[in-house]
Amino acid sequence: MENEVLKTVKGTKDFMPQEQMQRNWIRRTLEAVFETYGCKPLETPMLQHYELLASKYGGGDEILKEVYRLNDQGDRELGLRYDLTVPLTKVVGMNPEMRMPFKRYEIGKVFRDGPVKTGRLREFIQCDVDIVGTTSVLAEAELLSMAFEAFKRLGLDVYIEVNNRKLLSGVLQELGAPTMRAGDVMLSLDKLEKIGVDGVRDDLRERNVEESLVLAITSFLQEGVITLDLLAERFTSPLVQEGIRELRDMLAYVKGAGVGGELRFSPFLARGLGIYTGIVYEIFLQDGSITSSIGSGGRYDQIIGRLLDDGREYPAVGISFGLDVILAALANRNTEEQKAADVLVIPLGTEASSLGLANRLRESGIRVELELTGRRLKKALDYANKEGFAFALIYGENEVNSGQVVVRDMREGTEQPVPLELVEKWLSDKLSG
Amino acid sequence: MENEVLKTVKGTKDFMPQEQMQRNWIRRTLEAVFETYGCKPLETPMLQHYELLASKYGGGDEILKEVYRLNDQGDRELGLRYDLTVPLTKVVGMNPEMRMPFKRYEIGKVFRDGPVKTGRLREFIQCDVDIVGTTSVLAEAELLSMAFEAFKRLGLDVYIEVNNRKLLSGVLQELGAPTMRAGDVMLSLDKLEKIGVDGVRDDLRERNVEESLVLAITSFLQEGVITLDLLAERFTSPLVQEGIRELRDMLAYVKGAGVGGELRFSPFLARGLGIYTGIVYEIFLQDGSITSSIGSGGRYDQIIGRLLDDGREYPAVGISFGLDVILAALANRNTEEQKAADVLVIPLGTEASSLGLANRLRESGIRVELELTGRRLKKALDYANKEGFAFALIYGENEVNSGQVVVRDMREGTEQPVPLELVEKWLSDKLSG
Repeated sequence: MENEVLKTVKGTKDFMPQEQMQRNWIRRTLEAVFETYGCKPLETPMLQHYELLASKYGGGDEILKEVYRLNDQGDRELGLRYDLTVPLTKVVGMNPEMRMPFKRYEIGKVFRDGPVKTGRLREFIQCDVDIVGTTSVLAEAELLSMAFEAFKRLGLDVYIEVNNRKLLSGVLQELGAPTMRAGDVMLSLDKLEKIGVDGVRDDLRERNVEESLVLAITSFLQEGVITLDLLAERFTSPLVQEGIRELRDMLAYVKGAGVGGELRFSPFLARGLGIYTGIVYEIFLQDGSITSSIGSGGRYDQIIGRLLDDGREYPAVGISFGLDVILAALANRNTEEQKAADVLVIPLGTEASSLGLANRLRESGIRVELELTGRRLKKALDYANKEGFAFALIYGENEVNSGQVVVRDMREGTEQPVPLELVEKWLSDKLSG
Repeated sequence: MENEVLKTVKGTKDFMPQEQMQRNWIRRTLEAVFETYGCKPLETPMLQHYELLASKYGGGDEILKEVYRLNDQGDRELGLRYDLTVPLTKVVGMNPEMRMPFKRYEIGKVFRDGPVKTGRLREFIQCDVDIVGTTSVLAEAELLSMAFEAFKRLGLDVYIEVNNRKLLSGVLQELGAPTMRAGDVMLSLDKLEKIGVDGVRDDLRERNVEESLVLAITSFLQEGVITLDLLAERFTSPLVQEGIRELRDMLAYVKGAGVGGELRFSPFLARGLGIYTGIVYEIFLQDGSITSSIGSGGRYDQIIGRLLDDGREYPAVGISFGLDVILAALANRNTEEQKAADVLVIPLGTEASSLGLANRLRESGIRVELELTGRRLKKALDYANKEGFAFALIYGENEVNSGQVVVRDMREGTEQPVPLELVEKWLSDKLSG
C-alpha cells in the first residue's frame, strides 16, 4: 500500500483526544441542559432516501447541490442527511399518533459537499432542539432561556439577536417592496451594519431594485435608531403589528422569568434559509472573538405541513448549536475534561496486583492508566511526565510485601510511600484539592 | 409530495425517545468506564477514501462487498467506514510522533450494506476500545477487566469465552492440518457445541478435508474435556506452548487482580475475521436470552503494520461492544434514564412566572417540561398523565398572588398547595425518595 491513501477526506477531520475530550464535554453539557428542559433524545439515520431530502425545498435550493448521493446494493437512491430537520419531519409524519408538543433534541453528524472554509467541514455535528406542535411564543422563550443556560454552563458570554420575519416582511411591504423582491432586499439590509446606509443603497441598485423602493428604504434607514416602539408607530399593517406583538410577548416572558442574558432586537435579521415564518434568532459571542453566529434558529410553521401534505398543521420552532464553533470559542481554555487520566500505575513485576490496585482506584472514580508495556521505570516516568499525569504509582515486589505503594507527584517531582489502604483517599483528596 | 417517501431506508431505524434515552445511558456508562481505564476518545470521519477501506483486506474480503461507495463533487472515490479499526489505523499512520501505547475509544456509526436480520442494521453504532503499542497480555487483562466492569454497571450478567489463535493454529498443525486448510477446519470446529463430534466429522468431509485429518481431529475431540493442562501435555510445538503461556499469564493477571467475572476457556473459539493473531474473546449473557455475543475482540499484531508498511511494528489489541445488542439485552427493564422529565409546569395565564419557576427547578437538577400550548388544564393534565410525569405544577394568577403553587401527584391523583420557596426542596425530596 502506498502511503498516499493515508490521508483524510477533504472536508473531514480526525478529532484527536485533546480536542475530542472537550467536544465530549460540550456534548454532555448540552445534553444535560436539554434534558432539564424536558427535551427527549431522538436518533435518526444518516442514510435517507434522496427523494425525501430533495422534497423539502422542491429540488431548487442551494443545499441540494451539496447532498452526497449514493446507491445501495438494492439500487435505492440514497443521500446523506444535510440537516436534522428533514429526518425529524419524517419521524413526525410516520408517527401520526405522536403526542404534541414533541420536544426532541438530536446531536449528530450531517454532511454537506460544499465549499470548505476555516471551521466549516463537510462532515460536522449539529446539536438541534425543536418543538413541534405549538404556536405559542412561550416555546421561543423556552428555547432562548435554554440557550442562555447552555452557554452559561459552557462558560461563554453570549448575546442573542432576535427579530420576526412577519415584522420584516410587513415593513418591506409597507415600504413598497413587491413580495418577489423581498428576498433580495432582505439580503441587502442584512449587511447594513457592515456597509452602512450608502452601501445598502449601492447594493440595492446592483440588484436592480427599482429606484422608488431604493429611496423609500434608504430614507427609512436614515430616520435613526430602529426600535420596536418606532416600528409600531410607523407601520400599521396587521402583519407588522402581529410580528411586534409576538416579539413583545416573547421578550416579556423571558424578562418576566428572570432569565439572565442579553437579547438585542435586530430589525433586519432574516436568517439565510427561506423556511422561517416568525421569530428568528442568532447567538453571538460577547467578546467578538468569533464573528459568525454560534447558534441560531427560529419558527418554521409551514415546513413540516408542506412536506407531509396531510392537511394538518405542524407549527414548529427550533434552535441549532454548532459543536465545532463552540469548540473554537472554547479553544485555549483548559477545562477539567481535557485531562485524560489522573494516575499512571506502574507495575514492576506485579502485573496482577497492579491491575487490582488500578481497579480499586477506578472504583472510587479516579481515572487510572495502567502501564502496559513492561518498559523500564525511567521510561515509564518519562511517559507519565509527557502525558501530563498528576501522579505515578510505582508498585514493585517490595511494595506489595510491605503493603505500600510509592506515589510520585509528577508536578513536584517528589516521591513518598503511602500505605495501600490509604492510597485511594490520599489520591482523591489530592486530585479534588 | 407523495407519502411513500416517508419511509426509513432499508437497514436503518429511527430511535424514538424511549429507546434513545436508554441508548444514551448505555453510551454514557461505557464512556465513563472507558475513561476510568485511562482511555482517550477519538473521533474519526465516517467518510473515508475508498482506497483506504479497500486496502485492509487487499480487496478480497467479504466486507468490501458491503461498503457503501460514493463520489464527492471533486470526483474522489469515497466510502462510508465499515468499522472503527481502519480509521484508527489511518490516525496511527498519520501521527508517527504519537506516544505509545495509544489507548483510544471511539463510539460511532459504521455502515455495512449487507443482509438485514433481526437486530442487524446497515447503519449501526460500534463502541471500540483499542490499545496500540504493546505486546504484553496485561493489555488483554485490562480490556477484559474493563468489560466486566462495564457490564456490571449496565446490570448485565456476562461470561467471557477466551482462546488464543496461536494455540488453536498450533494444535491444528500438530494434528496434521496444512495451513491452507486451517481456516476451513476452524469453521467446522467452531460449531462443535452446536453439532457435536459427529456433526463436525460430517462438516469436515463436506469441506473435502482429507480423511486422515478428519480422523485425527475427531479422535482428538473424543478424548474428553479439553483443558489448558491437557493441551499443554498433549501438544509440544513452540506455537502451542506460547499460546498456552499467554493465556495462563492473562488469566493469572485477571484472577490475581481480583476481577469478578467468569472467564471460560473455549479451545475452538476463532472469531470470524482473519485478522487476529493472539488471544481472542467473546462476551455472552449468562441468562442466554441473546445467544449471539454482545461484545468481542482480540489481539491483531500485524494488521496496522501491514497497512502502514513503514517497517515498524504496531502490536494492537481491541474490544468492541455492540450498542444495540446491549439495548436488546436490556429491553423491558426500566432504568432511571428512561424517564423523560419529572415535572410538568402548567401556566394558567402566567407564562413568564411559570418559565421562571421552571428554570428555578431546573437549576436544582429537576427535569422540567413547561406546558407550551396554552391548552386547558384538563387537557394538560391528561397529557401529563399519558407522558408519565411524576408531578404537575399548576400555576395560575391566584397562586402567583398567594406565593404558592398547586402540586398534583400524578400517580396518587392528589393535589396540595406548596409555598413557592419550598417547592424545590419538596419536589427534590419526593423525586429522590
